[in-house]
Amino acid sequence: MLDFRSDRVLSDLRELARFGAYETGVHRPTFSEEDIAARRWFAAKLTEAGLESSIDGIGNVYGLSPGPGPKMLTGSHLESQNHAGWLDGALGMVFALEAARAIGRGVDVAAWCDEEGHFGSFIGSRSYTGLLDEAEIDGLANRYDGTPLREALARAGLAGVPRRQVEPGRYRGFVEAHIEQGATLEGSGLKIGVVTAIVAIWQFRITAVGEQNHAGTTSMARRRDAGLALVRLLGEIDRRFPEIAGPATVWTTGRITLEPGAPSIIPGRASLLFQFRDADPATLDRLEAELHRLVAAANEAGACPIEIEILGQSRPALMDETLQGLIDGAANAVQPGCALRMPSGAGHDAQYLARVMPAAMLFVPSIGGISHHWSENTSDDDIALGARVYCEAVAAALDAG
Amino acid sequence: MLDFRSDRVLSDLRELARFGAYETGVHRPTFSEEDIAARRWFAAKLTEAGLESSIDGIGNVYGLSPGPGPKMLTGSHLESQNHAGWLDGALGMVFALEAARAIGRGVDVAAWCDEEGHFGSFIGSRSYTGLLDEAEIDGLANRYDGTPLREALARAGLAGVPRRQVEPGRYRGFVEAHIEQGATLEGSGLKIGVVTAIVAIWQFRITAVGEQNHAGTTSMARRRDAGLALVRLLGEIDRRFPEIAGPATVWTTGRITLEPGAPSIIPGRASLLFQFRDADPATLDRLEAELHRLVAAANEAGACPIEIEILGQSRPALMDETLQGLIDGAANAVQPGCALRMPSGAGHDAQYLARVMPAAMLFVPSIGGISHHWSENTSDDDIALGARVYCEAVAAALDAG
Repeated sequence: MLDFRSDRVLSDLRELARFGAYETGVHRPTFSEEDIAARRWFAAKLTEAGLESSIDGIGNVYGLSPGPGPKMLTGSHLESQNHAGWLDGALGMVFALEAARAIGRGVDVAAWCDEEGHFGSFIGSRSYTGLLDEAEIDGLANRYDGTPLREALARAGLAGVPRRQVEPGRYRGFVEAHIEQGATLEGSGLKIGVVTAIVAIWQFRITAVGEQNHAGTTSMARRRDAGLALVRLLGEIDRRFPEIAGPATVWTTGRITLEPGAPSIIPGRASLLFQFRDADPATLDRLEAELHRLVAAANEAGACPIEIEILGQSRPALMDETLQGLIDGAANAVQPGCALRMPSGAGHDAQYLARVMPAAMLFVPSIGGISHHWSENTSDDDIALGARVYCEAVAAALDAG
Repeated sequence: MLDFRSDRVLSDLRELARFGAYETGVHRPTFSEEDIAARRWFAAKLTEAGLESSIDGIGNVYGLSPGPGPKMLTGSHLESQNHAGWLDGALGMVFALEAARAIGRGVDVAAWCDEEGHFGSFIGSRSYTGLLDEAEIDGLANRYDGTPLREALARAGLAGVPRRQVEPGRYRGFVEAHIEQGATLEGSGLKIGVVTAIVAIWQFRITAVGEQNHAGTTSMARRRDAGLALVRLLGEIDRRFPEIAGPATVWTTGRITLEPGAPSIIPGRASLLFQFRDADPATLDRLEAELHRLVAAANEAGACPIEIEILGQSRPALMDETLQGLIDGAANAVQPGCALRMPSGAGHDAQYLARVMPAAMLFVPSIGGISHHWSENTSDDDIALGARVYCEAVAAALDAG
């Protein structure tokens, strides 16, 4: 019998949302003052729950269950996207905390640092799973203000602190709860998503180099406008990608920067951040080949050389069948017929944990499918139901052995 | 007989370029520390030249000739574009200073503040010509960091200082020297541009509003991508404008901003700075109508409403025929056949001075036509020749009686 308390889940979530509160959401970038305070607050909650808490040299927060017996690893992330929602990451952390309290044994909790990528790509879970070396840390800096990761770690008091890595054989598996961030559950009237696979995300920085010049005195014929070169390339992507994408493929240009960015100067340099996502390796390869073909065609036709830099190429990650079955079973026991098997279009730390242990994910509905925006939300009832199913599933995994 | 000294011109230009030195150019945005220091340095040079120097409440630096007799007004601007060249503005200021020294009577000098538009549109010359009111000043802020103009003025020690306006009847005219910033003089092997007219610049901020959402979990069909809406609009402008523009029309997108600007978030809002320039009013009207038509078509087809905000619509400005003749005559006296009559594709303070007195401009060649970039340059010989012609022309205007 679990000591599960949904009121504790909701009040912890609301307390956590005070760190970096912004509109009805939060602005809590990795290693901001608010983020560091949230990590310390969460570590104290873990201690209060009877776990041995610590923060390691990459900023991961851990709570380790002290006793003997089988162990499950649980968690998600604490930082937020900029000016974004209160549940993305936070929900999974509070569910994990509640699992530790409700089950009272064998539940370890981890907050993987910087899942939102302010400094790099999944540096917390990659550090834990042995996929992040010191040289990469040396080279990382904040995407928005350029602060080196080493400097941010030092400011958080984490310079020289060792980085914890997975202890082989300790865990039966890892379960991460998260808001869906899409509208599939809401659209079908279901309450629990049982994730089958996490899509791969392939990210690129595309840069064009032209000639910075005066916007009034340089004739159209003489110009080498780097911004226009990228606008034309994006037009080609917009035309071609729908023809070759898979049914669930998504692609996005998240940022365009023209330099120097003044109204009366022809951009001498322009860059953009582009990504596409799919769970099918053949589709990913096809899209990447097309991107290179379009850039090569642009370089043949245009006067501003364009280059593609690969920022990340994750692999699709399959979730563990047994753990999927336990989540499904727990959902059906709490509210029959409320669960749906579905892929995750978003990347999550579980994709790296899946490389070193059985891993699974549970989704709760997102109102209107909205996330990465401060209006992101989930009803209290759906949060409470999700937390209960999560705790039951983790308990079942501990008992399964 | 003028006491003209080209070595003094070149050494003053080099000394001025130390304020905000960047690569071989300068970074001296309006009211930056370096800009304020440059204004004070220049005011001291005016005093040294025997003029009554002052800085008024909008940041204009003045040097007034104390004696009686006919007066000419000379000058340009002191601040630079970001990370740009050492001669844009500075050349005209040092030529004006040299005219005051070389002629020794009747030459007033003015540095018009913020010609480069860090805070607004020609606020210095518009203030002097009565086209800038206090309410507009209240609303202006730095384009790059948002600092209110009032705050910047206060930091420069100019809060509450009166703004000087043109004294009716004092001047025979205004002459501004400037680098060409294009390649027309260089291409024709000529040395002095006699400006016939300054083109109008029409500037717009175009904004699209979509729905900020997760780049992985939001299907392509459900998206309202504000960035993509603007990319498609720019594609249409790129297709249509060449068909309807005049032979000398130029158009430029200087900045594109996607919000929030993160790689994994679909932009919920996107904006860009767009401008076109021409000296023909009918062409300007035709281009503006087409821009509105393209936006209306985009709004009919797309899910992200696009709005156009007018940031500036200057008028084409004709230069004074008599002053043009004096510059041409001075050029031919110094080096026969070295001058060319030409329009200015760039906006200049002379276009506002032309509303209150006869105004003219003299161009010197730009190496490679490059400006608004730190590599902007003009040969020492061309600078010296230009300064001599400038001083002779101003002296001739004073003598013309």
